[in-house]
Amino acid sequence: MAKFKLDDIDHQILDMLIDNTRVPFTDIAKKLVISAGTVHVRVKKMEEAGIIQGSSLTLDYKKLGYSFIAYVGIFLQNTSQTKFVLERINEIPFVTVAHITTGKFNIFCKIRARNTDHAKDVIFKLDDIDGVYRTETMISLEESINDKKRLMHTIFNDM
Amino acid sequence: MAKFKLDDIDHQILDMLIDNTRVPFTDIAKKLVISAGTVHVRVKKMEEAGIIQGSSLTLDYKKLGYSFIAYVGIFLQNTSQTKFVLERINEIPFVTVAHITTGKFNIFCKIRARNTDHAKDVIFKLDDIDGVYRTETMISLEESINDKKRLMHTIFNDM
Amino acid sequence: MAKFKLDDIDHQILDMLIDNTRVPFTDIAKKLVISAGTVHVRVKKMEEAGIIQGSSLTLDYKKLGYSFIAYVGIFLQNTSQTKFVLERINEIPFVTVAHITTGKFNIFCKIRARNTDHAKDVIFKLDDIDGVYRTETMISLEESINDKKRLMHTIFNDM
Amino acid sequence: MAKFKLDDIDHQILDMLIDNTRVPFTDIAKKLVISAGTVHVRVKKMEEAGIIQGSSLTLDYKKLGYSFIAYVGIFLQNTSQTKFVLERINEIPFVTVAHITTGKFNIFCKIRARNTDHAKDVIFKLDDIDGVYRTETMISLEESINDKKRLMHTIFNDM
Amino acid sequence: MAKFKLDDIDHQILDMLIDNTRVPFTDIAKKLVISAGTVHVRVKKMEEAGIIQGSSLTLDYKKLGYSFIAYVGIFLQNTSQTKFVLERINEIPFVTVAHITTGKFNIFCKIRARNTDHAKDVIFKLDDIDGVYRTETMISLEESINDKKRLMHTIFNDM
Amino acid sequence: MAKFKLDDIDHQILDMLIDNTRVPFTDIAKKLVISAGTVHVRVKKMEEAGIIQGSSLTLDYKKLGYSFIAYVGIFLQNTSQTKFVLERINEIPFVTVAHITTGKFNIFCKIRARNTDHAKDVIFKLDDIDGVYRTETMISLEESINDKKRLMHTIFNDM
Amino acid sequence: MAKFKLDDIDHQILDMLIDNTRVPFTDIAKKLVISAGTVHVRVKKMEEAGIIQGSSLTLDYKKLGYSFIAYVGIFLQNTSQTKFVLERINEIPFVTVAHITTGKFNIFCKIRARNTDHAKDVIFKLDDIDGVYRTETMISLEESINDKKRLMHTIFNDM
Amino acid sequence: MAKFKLDDIDHQILDMLIDNTRVPFTDIAKKLVISAGTVHVRVKKMEEAGIIQGSSLTLDYKKLGYSFIAYVGIFLQNTSQTKFVLERINEIPFVTVAHITTGKFNIFCKIRARNTDHAKDVIFKLDDIDGVYRTETMISLEESINDKKRLMHTIFNDM
Repeated sequence: MAKFKLDDIDHQILDMLIDNTRVPFTDIAKKLVISAGTVHVRVKKMEEAGIIQGSSLTLDYKKLGYSFIAYVGIFLQNTSQTKFVLERINEIPFVTVAHITTGKFNIFCKIRARNTDHAKDVIFKLDDIDGVYRTETMISLEESINDKKRLMHTIFNDM
Repeated sequence: MAKFKLDDIDHQILDMLIDNTRVPFTDIAKKLVISAGTVHVRVKKMEEAGIIQGSSLTLDYKKLGYSFIAYVGIFLQNTSQTKFVLERINEIPFVTVAHITTGKFNIFCKIRARNTDHAKDVIFKLDDIDGVYRTETMISLEESINDKKRLMHTIFNDM
Repeated sequence: MAKFKLDDIDHQILDMLIDNTRVPFTDIAKKLVISAGTVHVRVKKMEEAGIIQGSSLTLDYKKLGYSFIAYVGIFLQNTSQTKFVLERINEIPFVTVAHITTGKFNIFCKIRARNTDHAKDVIFKLDDIDGVYRTETMISLEESINDKKRLMHTIFNDM
Repeated sequence: MAKFKLDDIDHQILDMLIDNTRVPFTDIAKKLVISAGTVHVRVKKMEEAGIIQGSSLTLDYKKLGYSFIAYVGIFLQNTSQTKFVLERINEIPFVTVAHITTGKFNIFCKIRARNTDHAKDVIFKLDDIDGVYRTETMISLEESINDKKRLMHTIFNDM
Repeated sequence: MAKFKLDDIDHQILDMLIDNTRVPFTDIAKKLVISAGTVHVRVKKMEEAGIIQGSSLTLDYKKLGYSFIAYVGIFLQNTSQTKFVLERINEIPFVTVAHITTGKFNIFCKIRARNTDHAKDVIFKLDDIDGVYRTETMISLEESINDKKRLMHTIFNDM
Repeated sequence: MAKFKLDDIDHQILDMLIDNTRVPFTDIAKKLVISAGTVHVRVKKMEEAGIIQGSSLTLDYKKLGYSFIAYVGIFLQNTSQTKFVLERINEIPFVTVAHITTGKFNIFCKIRARNTDHAKDVIFKLDDIDGVYRTETMISLEESINDKKRLMHTIFNDM
Repeated sequence: MAKFKLDDIDHQILDMLIDNTRVPFTDIAKKLVISAGTVHVRVKKMEEAGIIQGSSLTLDYKKLGYSFIAYVGIFLQNTSQTKFVLERINEIPFVTVAHITTGKFNIFCKIRARNTDHAKDVIFKLDDIDGVYRTETMISLEESINDKKRLMHTIFNDM
Repeated sequence: MAKFKLDDIDHQILDMLIDNTRVPFTDIAKKLVISAGTVHVRVKKMEEAGIIQGSSLTLDYKKLGYSFIAYVGIFLQNTSQTKFVLERINEIPFVTVAHITTGKFNIFCKIRARNTDHAKDVIFKLDDIDGVYRTETMISLEESINDKKRLMHTIFNDM
């Protein structure tokens, strides 16, 4: 749980990569007045330390025909089944996020689907996993914010 | 709402970028036996069409000292305040996702914080926005799945 | 609250009209071995008694682009506003049914909309009516049964 | 999911039929200054396309002794039983509407009964279907709106 | 369901008995200027018609050491067990009222107990009946109104 | 809160009165082999001590046209209004029982009404009392037990 | 249930011990102008009567690395298992308080854990006890009051 | 948040004080084969570091006439009032614990009272604090576990 120590240069490198993961290292080097090799070494070090786990594209799911988002709360028959159920959930690609939670639900998921009919199929797949007792669905009418960049900038400015 | 038409080459390009947004276009070109210029043109076209909206780093928030995740459901005094409240929420960087939802809540958020104390501060900030009537919080004990890549691959294989 | 007395002939006429409101009275007359005039007189009488209130087409809303169905529960600030709020609801054509109910909600509505975005607009219109305190929405994934004919036949066979 | 194309004449024909399904085609023809044959052909075409699915009488259920309306939410033991349970529900004529829903309930029904005692019988019949885990009932104190005509007119004026 | 016809004299007799079931018939007779025999005959007739089912003492349960009142909602495993469970409930004298209800609970009871410990015993007895799935208890802090006389007077004045 | 001391004779007198409040004191005296004067003195003493508060008729409300029973939970805006609201409730004769409760509701009532329409009127009257914030209604489908005599006998046998 | 009679001297002794259980009896004796032997005898008597059950340290759990507090509501499959389940709960030292409760839950616990991960382990242990049907957790963001001394002083001043 | 370092001797001292805060330091010294002065110095150090915050008596509240325990959940009008409301709560000695919580309630309290009537007074006092919107009460039928000693021993054995 001990924090990896990032220095100011690391923060500035991350700050640039957050806005565009494809920015050439030479551009970062020029901006920070260091060598491209240094950028390369430090990014590598942050990858090896597991701080940078990878990168992903931000796609417009609506344009790709996946405009339906829902949150599904799952009640298990017994929490000893949590690990098994999560493995089954992991086989359903339309579930993009899953948490073990406190409160009402045992597991809480986010799903993306093409439309109401498709969402019904995905929800029924979740319902049919062994050990799942019941599900409750909350439908998104609009994804108003989905942006981790503000958080990342705050983290690196705070540190 | 008409879908942009992506052909098979587009899908294969996206399929490679999903796994590593920093993969050089020359590598993509070699793999697909097309020219790097073609890759460049097609990525550009997908960016202009808004299908590719950008890219983001996947960081290990635990290692950065942000191990606390919660979902916060917000009840508004009146839905006519939805837009105003969302703008205020957008000023809190620790809220990474916000949806307008059906069911119990008017707005449903995901927050990341350093710890219980910090989470209390973030929740109180949400509570104190004008027009927010009440909030209800569900705490994540473990983020078991957070992976859009499986969905992206499925989308491009399905199309 | 005293029941209008329908005799067996009335029941048989209703039984035929239920299945097809456009069936010619001469066909009914032939089937029941009575005169077309008798059919006409009896239908008229049932209309005047208010038993037959009219007729309606059964359309396929999906084919007309209205595939989204939701139930919306409305909490009022005060039940003295019930009549006023129902008049405002009546001005929204996408609300096809509204009940004053016991239990959690004061008013319970059924809405039909084109899609999620349109549903959001309709729900926000309901939320913005003066006197409406809060709404809660439950979305239909499939309208599996919508058929009053079985009930009507049962009523006329029971009587 | 592609919409059947209706032209302006179709809309005007539907608009007249909505208000009275028994209006003679000659009346429609006269009003729209077209031939009765044209009306006939177009109605037939809309029936064959499945847009017009039929017609039904609007009866006054109170006058027929059926003044009790309730909504019944059904929890299933497992959603794999949904289809089976819906078939059993379909055998109970007092259930006039049934939806597969998101949120708290798996299936949501509307029932009409003669009175409290009769409603109890219908609810117990639902409860006793194999696979039904529990039901929750919300009673209507007044059916204030039940009118699809406003929606239909809006659809045909919008198109 | 047809109402037994009570005339004005019956109402006045009932009106006097409501306030004191032990009032001598001769007093009633004097007050209404009829014979004591008439009072006797009419009370007898109302008893035979089942309108008067009996009489009961109003005791001060607090003074008798029974100051604890609670409402217990019962969830059944299946409503087919309703009759059986009610028979078991009927064997517990501390349950003074039980209803089959709509909404959340299948059966809803009122219990009187000596204190918290005794209430726990009674609730556990209910919980342990075969077919009872779960119970939920709401405790009375004060019985502010328990008075059917106002209702009775209203009924007889309305008729 | 100290219990009034009842001896065995008192118990036996109460035991007889519970089953029939109109039983003549001479009958009680004969049965218990004491003088009628003793019965009279002891009943008087129990009345003066407030143990016997009165007597009431048990009527068949269904036969009197009052077949509708509901429980209404009341949420207040502030509990400082409890006393005021209870006084207003006390003016509505159709409310036969009212408790200050723990849990979800502030006040919990039992109402008797003629039918659904009448119940709506009573509920709306409760809703319109100043200080009442919201109500929730649970309808009785059948009053299966309403009998304090079993409790009374148990109390007197236990003592 | 009869209260043990404490006199004024007892109250003053308790009043001093409440603030510091380690205060020497000679100090108490001096303050109350009685002999140390009297203090000793009276404390002994209160211990034997079970009024003083012992003493405990007040530690700062945060400083000891236990900063996570949660309340866990437990639903049992059947209340006949209450005793058995409480014995299993008693084997988990991180559960510091457990009550049999009315309302939603059968058993209600307070737990202290090191952090979110540890809390998850404790909750899963509770979930896995035979007879536990489901749990619901509410997390403390801050323990603002935990002080029985004010109550104790009030009790001894009231008596 | 850095943990104070306790060594094995500290743990053994705490372990003995936990079971009896009044154990003489000479007894501890003898048992651990160290000098009484060392015990004194180390206890002093732990008090100064704030690890030992004090000591408290464990009394039998039932014997003192306080047998009623309840948990009260408080909803605030706005969380900006949290601090003010907690100060008001702190003036009510019958509230022994109060937490700021996630989930349904803003503040969650434990109260001890003499009986139902007294509990009603305490709850009404909470309800009447400015800024308190509503409360919900859950009553304890039995305090089955209230023991921090098992936790303390575990902590000191774990470290």
